Amino acid sequence: MKTETNNAPPPARDKLLFTPGPLTTSHSVKAAMLHDAGSWHFEFNAVVDSIRERLLKLGGVSREQGYEVVLLQGSGTFGVEAVFQTCVPNDGKVLVLSNGAYGERMIQMLKHARIAHVALRTGEDAPSDPAALDQALAADPSISHVAAVHCETTTGVLNPIDELGIVTHRHGRTYIVDAMSSFGALPIDFAACHIDFLISSANKCIESVPGFSFVICRRDVLMSSQGIARSLSLDLIAQLTGFEKNGQFRYTPPTHAILAFAQALDELDTEGGPAARNARYTRNHETLVTGMRALGFHPYLKPAVQSCIITSFLFPTDPEFDFNTFYRRLSDHGYLIYPGKISQADTFRIGSIGRIFEADIHALLAAIQQTVNELGILVETPTPLPTREAEANFN
Amino acid sequence: MKTETNNAPPPARDKLLFTPGPLTTSHSVKAAMLHDAGSWHFEFNAVVDSIRERLLKLGGVSREQGYEVVLLQGSGTFGVEAVFQTCVPNDGKVLVLSNGAYGERMIQMLKHARIAHVALRTGEDAPSDPAALDQALAADPSISHVAAVHCETTTGVLNPIDELGIVTHRHGRTYIVDAMSSFGALPIDFAACHIDFLISSANKCIESVPGFSFVICRRDVLMSSQGIARSLSLDLIAQLTGFEKNGQFRYTPPTHAILAFAQALDELDTEGGPAARNARYTRNHETLVTGMRALGFHPYLKPAVQSCIITSFLFPTDPEFDFNTFYRRLSDHGYLIYPGKISQADTFRIGSIGRIFEADIHALLAAIQQTVNELGILVETPTPLPTREAEANFN
Repeated sequence: MKTETNNAPPPARDKLLFTPGPLTTSHSVKAAMLHDAGSWHFEFNAVVDSIRERLLKLGGVSREQGYEVVLLQGSGTFGVEAVFQTCVPNDGKVLVLSNGAYGERMIQMLKHARIAHVALRTGEDAPSDPAALDQALAADPSISHVAAVHCETTTGVLNPIDELGIVTHRHGRTYIVDAMSSFGALPIDFAACHIDFLISSANKCIESVPGFSFVICRRDVLMSSQGIARSLSLDLIAQLTGFEKNGQFRYTPPTHAILAFAQALDELDTEGGPAARNARYTRNHETLVTGMRALGFHPYLKPAVQSCIITSFLFPTDPEFDFNTFYRRLSDHGYLIYPGKISQADTFRIGSIGRIFEADIHALLAAIQQTVNELGILVETPTPLPTREAEANFN
Repeated sequence: MKTETNNAPPPARDKLLFTPGPLTTSHSVKAAMLHDAGSWHFEFNAVVDSIRERLLKLGGVSREQGYEVVLLQGSGTFGVEAVFQTCVPNDGKVLVLSNGAYGERMIQMLKHARIAHVALRTGEDAPSDPAALDQALAADPSISHVAAVHCETTTGVLNPIDELGIVTHRHGRTYIVDAMSSFGALPIDFAACHIDFLISSANKCIESVPGFSFVICRRDVLMSSQGIARSLSLDLIAQLTGFEKNGQFRYTPPTHAILAFAQALDELDTEGGPAARNARYTRNHETLVTGMRALGFHPYLKPAVQSCIITSFLFPTDPEFDFNTFYRRLSDHGYLIYPGKISQADTFRIGSIGRIFEADIHALLAAIQQTVNELGILVETPTPLPTREAEANFN
């Protein structure tokens, strides 16, 4: 990538991305893209087929159990919208559990598609509420679908997709889970959560490059939606039918991103699978929070509801703090953090996922400390890190 | 990419793709993907901004003249559908000029979106007909939009987008051109053709990797479509607004494909721009047709309507000819051709675009000759290649 300063020597390596994705990926994942594959060729079809098999396995489900997986070109948002556009009938109604930008985005999708919907909101620092969902579903039998976000990366809050799913299932509604930034690392039990549709993306915890999303779903629920699809490109049934007919994407796939993804799945296996990846992300997150607290920064969320994926930190109270300046200084050091997206507080975010290790977190913390010193920002008195147990007792 | 035979040594190079895309690209285009970029970072935004500027310039248009460009995640199909989903009002009606699979795909898009439409079809070997369009528009004032395909890669036929545009403009309708496999090589005069929306894709004549499409359009026509969009992901106005607000894609862009595209634009410049690329493709095509005729194969189209992008060849009349066997033998030689898509005849296709040169065409022809000999296929007596002039006199 070209930098702004033309006379500067090229950077020795890419800046590390502490974000919810696109992420820092391994060189070997990127190097898998150094090939041009024929999108209809049997060798490429075999890679696509193998990826679909491995995604089902990664989800702990199988075709024998009635699950299927559909890959779809575009970002994760395209995958989420494809579920709505393909599967919610004209007389359907979607309840969206929202506590951040990704829940709100679902509402925007439904507005665009002229699909009836209702939002059940909690504060941006509070998980979606199964009891409130129970009441809402009891009160409105016209609600046909419930949509939840597993890890809401707006804040990093983790929503209880298991309890929400149990409630949804008890009321006989279809359950859609946006697991964009959690699938591949955080444990998800499809059967116990009664998940009908789960959407995730190539460039999150599987640590590949962006280019497509995937939907793991109950095949019977998907196929019962024949004739609904309002968009050809986003028609998941037609997309699945294409894969089943000749192993191909209906329309040009991101061939290079597919090759990278196959490599990323290999590397996930090598690391020890989702449990090992979750452990690394958890170490990254804990190292980050401990270090940031030691520097005087405060996480926005209580530890009990905080995921290990991404962490929001409150701006220092010093009025001299300017996020753009802070961001650019850290960028000069080679570290890219993420702006905040919370409406209720001024925050910035730091992700723990991607090809990022504890040593990288320590290096980031050192750069943050140096930046704070250079800019003369006053941060508050360091506070001890409450343990999850202490927090649980407190609530 | 993994091959089927595990014991075989890895191939010295990728198989060459003689297709309408994804194409064989240069190593340097692919190597541009060996970097992870922050999708919201100012350095990446600058690349996106520069790509948008350069696409306008490549189209021979400017913002001062009232044109804009919108990049959209997904394949070219997503871009075409986005124009319909964003810009055709509920009381609109689209006339689709169809002489192949891509025209028919537009009709499928309109059916999905429940948009009124009418097809004006010509045979798969005949260009769309401006006189018939004139009559159809005169007869039906409810038609609001006309959609044409420039190079219909189903056959390789070239449609007269200039004459069709003049007719469309005279009737005061909005004009949409699918220039997927032509933009960047074949000359297109936006003003003379009265094009309101042109859609193309990263992995065609600009010779980059797949991952996104782009729409070059009249800004006023796009912006007059506020409130219509039926899909959030495919909402071109929101996508443009996002670029104009902060230089970013609204949703995760295919960062690596974007970096590759910037490199591909550099290499298009280095080659001498669209005119030089068109000249190379024309040489490739002419070498191919001459060589195939010498081997006894017959192009499906008359030269007068044949583009230099991709050529359909009729199956040999020998009943022993089996396309799959033929295809696999050529694949073993390292050359991937493309199956036919024509309903009216049995054909296969050979593309002339991508990082493919005359020497590659000669190598392909030698492999075809060897394959024909090995398989003992009887091809017909070689026929002389009619010149375009002779063809024109004949008609």
